[in-house]
Amino acid sequence: MTILPPALTDVIEALGKLPGVGPRTAERYAYYLVKNDHGKAKDLAAALEHLHAGIGVCKKTFALVPAGQELSDLYTDPARDKTIVAVVAEPFDIVALEKTGQFKGTYHVLGGLVSPIDGVGPEDLHIAELVKRIDEDKVNEIILATNASVEGESTALYIQQQIGPKRKVKITRLARGLPIGVDLEYADQITLARALEGRQAL
Amino acid sequence: MTILPPALTDVIEALGKLPGVGPRTAERYAYYLVKNDHGKAKDLAAALEHLHAGIGVCKKTFALVPAGQELSDLYTDPARDKTIVAVVAEPFDIVALEKTGQFKGTYHVLGGLVSPIDGVGPEDLHIAELVKRIDEDKVNEIILATNASVEGESTALYIQQQIGPKRKVKITRLARGLPIGVDLEYADQITLARALEGRQAL
Repeated sequence: MTILPPALTDVIEALGKLPGVGPRTAERYAYYLVKNDHGKAKDLAAALEHLHAGIGVCKKTFALVPAGQELSDLYTDPARDKTIVAVVAEPFDIVALEKTGQFKGTYHVLGGLVSPIDGVGPEDLHIAELVKRIDEDKVNEIILATNASVEGESTALYIQQQIGPKRKVKITRLARGLPIGVDLEYADQITLARALEGRQAL
Repeated sequence: MTILPPALTDVIEALGKLPGVGPRTAERYAYYLVKNDHGKAKDLAAALEHLHAGIGVCKKTFALVPAGQELSDLYTDPARDKTIVAVVAEPFDIVALEKTGQFKGTYHVLGGLVSPIDGVGPEDLHIAELVKRIDEDKVNEIILATNASVEGESTALYIQQQIGPKRKVKITRLARGLPIGVDLEYADQITLARALEGRQAL
């Protein structure tokens, strides 16, 4: 006895493996695709089919690049300053920073953050490659653009130790403070403490 | 200048067309698929590729059936009582009712609800086919299992009018009342009014 056709339950099951998608949401997505014309499901199928084959990793920055391309466009662009490197955890963090339109340096993707609970140690991240880049690209400044979380902070600390005081490279990190548009009274204590600590002269 | 490879942005764009999925969620799904092994993306692609080709519609009940199958298993099963028909708006409503394990009749999928705002009139629904089934299957009872919404109620009313008083068929609808586990003081006024109206003898 089949209540739903297997072609449909296969899609529900596969969609249910996406992060944060439960059976109900997977059903809603699948039923939307069934109700619509064939195009939407076929387009998504084709895009997914080519996903992994179409993606490579930049040998220098570990950003995602089109397959077959050795280096990221953001790295080879002569307009970008190779002596300033923003260190990020994941490739999508680059998108967030690029949206600001304020950064003209290059990136380095760690591929995660140090997290003993998840079994991720510093040796699993692209930290050695970062240290190598300091000499190769004559890096002046490393901006540690990791999350303001325990993992982000401890990864930043580890990188700072690895680079060491001998190398003449300025190490900075993103400012912590009040997010724009948030009332002081609603800010949490730690954020407020950091904002006070990092207060700037007018 | 490409920040993300086209193979990835194609997947983000296609996933972003699912209902309730914004650009951020689509990015999260896509990045999850990139980080995982090829298998998950390929499985989803294959399932989606076969979605429409693998699904047909039951000629009697308009439930979804495996492609090439004329009638729904729930309709042809001799254990199901064809003289009792539960009328539902969408095929997935059948799954919800089947999960109760309480219903032994057959189903009829309308394919939506009357909704003038969305341009859905009664002629767009499988109401004529329902009326035809009354005679063909010697239906004794029609259970209007539509949502407790304005559209659900007006569709139920329209069906009642179409069947008319001449046909000797009992028309019922799902009870409205307090959901199990909900405190009386938290129930909304309309639900409480309906629960009072439909009070049952102990």
